[in-house]
Amino acid sequence: MKIIVDAFGGDNAPESNVRGSVTAVNLNEDLEIILVGDETKIKTELEKVGYDGDRISIVHAPDVITNDDVPTTAIRAKKESSLVVALDMLKGDEEIVGMVSAGSTGAVLTGATLKIGRLEGVLRPVMSAILTSENGSEVLIVDAGATVDAKPEFLVQYAKMGSIFMAGLTGKDKPKIGLLSVGTEDHKGSEFSKLVFELLKQEKDLNFAGNIEGRDILAGGVDVVVTDGFSGNVALKSIEAGVGFAMHNLKEAIKTGGIGAKIGYLFLKKSLKKTMSKVDYRNYGGAPFLGVKKLVVKAHGSSNAKSIYASILQVKRMQEFGLTEKMSKVFEKND
Amino acid sequence: MKIIVDAFGGDNAPESNVRGSVTAVNLNEDLEIILVGDETKIKTELEKVGYDGDRISIVHAPDVITNDDVPTTAIRAKKESSLVVALDMLKGDEEIVGMVSAGSTGAVLTGATLKIGRLEGVLRPVMSAILTSENGSEVLIVDAGATVDAKPEFLVQYAKMGSIFMAGLTGKDKPKIGLLSVGTEDHKGSEFSKLVFELLKQEKDLNFAGNIEGRDILAGGVDVVVTDGFSGNVALKSIEAGVGFAMHNLKEAIKTGGIGAKIGYLFLKKSLKKTMSKVDYRNYGGAPFLGVKKLVVKAHGSSNAKSIYASILQVKRMQEFGLTEKMSKVFEKND
Repeated sequence: MKIIVDAFGGDNAPESNVRGSVTAVNLNEDLEIILVGDETKIKTELEKVGYDGDRISIVHAPDVITNDDVPTTAIRAKKESSLVVALDMLKGDEEIVGMVSAGSTGAVLTGATLKIGRLEGVLRPVMSAILTSENGSEVLIVDAGATVDAKPEFLVQYAKMGSIFMAGLTGKDKPKIGLLSVGTEDHKGSEFSKLVFELLKQEKDLNFAGNIEGRDILAGGVDVVVTDGFSGNVALKSIEAGVGFAMHNLKEAIKTGGIGAKIGYLFLKKSLKKTMSKVDYRNYGGAPFLGVKKLVVKAHGSSNAKSIYASILQVKRMQEFGLTEKMSKVFEKND
Repeated sequence: MKIIVDAFGGDNAPESNVRGSVTAVNLNEDLEIILVGDETKIKTELEKVGYDGDRISIVHAPDVITNDDVPTTAIRAKKESSLVVALDMLKGDEEIVGMVSAGSTGAVLTGATLKIGRLEGVLRPVMSAILTSENGSEVLIVDAGATVDAKPEFLVQYAKMGSIFMAGLTGKDKPKIGLLSVGTEDHKGSEFSKLVFELLKQEKDLNFAGNIEGRDILAGGVDVVVTDGFSGNVALKSIEAGVGFAMHNLKEAIKTGGIGAKIGYLFLKKSLKKTMSKVDYRNYGGAPFLGVKKLVVKAHGSSNAKSIYASILQVKRMQEFGLTEKMSKVFEKND
């Protein structure tokens, strides 16, 4: 199975991207990786880790799209950038099943939509985010921030795409869908969310569980949280604020609590790290971009080798599950 | 100074409401409290704590509005409820400066708007929430969830009201205002938030600091976070989810980490509790409802005596600061 990796996207590129790819081929005999970017630099990284196998190939692309570039302009203008070259190959080569990039979110989304194109029937591809709930189950949020001004019909499609994706990830037959709102009662919500609620209720193939609140996102009650890109982005970053705030206060408690608190922390440290690593996004890969014709995973900008590897595995699993074919069938039929 | 307390709003009413009021008059010689609700039950509670002073009076109201009541209907139909009687008195009696209620949020908001009325020039009163940032400063979020379908002009007014309120609370001359969006750059946002951005930029009296993201809410960079009621509610509850998630994982680490982790926790416990109490909303009072003609504080539904007392103190401080007069001047002048 051939997967293409944008070797020059992300804060730790190309080192992490190359190392993650090497891990991927070393641990998965059926994988071939194409690394796209500055050939000399990629070769240097491969030499550093002593890789001399034949399941990693390099395609030279001298340019890089950064977070400072305007996505639509950069995709058109920077034809020699690692991202654009990777997308062009992904589009043209049937054998390449998907791409991983840790580059600019906007550029990856715009590029994938423009170059790879939407699946037939899909109104708007969607950025997803995978979180771990309190009970350890995985929760998908769609839209994580791709389309800030959405139409109600987009969200119904997000629910469908999220449902298919989570069926593949969890093995559940009918993943539970929650609509993000300001209260759990059916009548709670904005004019927009109420319209979405009515549309979702009519979708008999979906396991729609009604409205959920921000505080329910990590409770594990639903598998998919559907919302518009603005609220989804606010929710994800506010969760981050909440976790960061609690950890900040834990650190303060250790710092200001005298010798007793410091001793306490020493005892607790190992177990705390173990628990936290269970919910570290770096172990889970990136954010699948759903609704385009090929598999695209946007890895976190600060990805290390581990998260690049996890993102490659995500593409592999989605391919084995037949995600794109399953989605095609649903959208060709319904829309 | 006379403040009226809805003795029958909230999960712990009337006990917490009565006890909080007793603390308020005991610790503040200039305060008089009017408790509204079932007279016999209030008397019993007062006897329990041995209060026999003359700065607490009781006004009988046999009925109660619950969270199951539809706010608009309940405010009109339940004329003998503690909330409606309290609001009628607050409206009619010039000597009563404000009200505290821990009852149904919807009923308090609807009731205050209908009975007390908006300040001249105010398009829409707003529910605020006060959080503590990582550096210990207080952050006001407006709107915390009163109006889920807002107009851009509402948010400009929220910014003005929030600015005046935070000037009073923090003593800062020009509190910093951030607009909640999906990125910090000026051009980031939804069509709606971009319109608000342009309007806020034109308000030369406001210290507008531009867009902030969900993850910045608790960072302490701004004093006021402006947003619509839908996103504000999502942000607040997602922060709650994030904090809850981190605390859940801390508990898991203690539970599953063996004897070492448990010993560690024992050492750390005291310091952790102290740090957490600094950010416990119960010590800070409730959510001021801004833009109506009198001072209204919505205490948390699960308020204990401490938080009822803190909410009473909030009304007192807002009165001493002359909040309503200051707001009147700004809105009469500008709108």
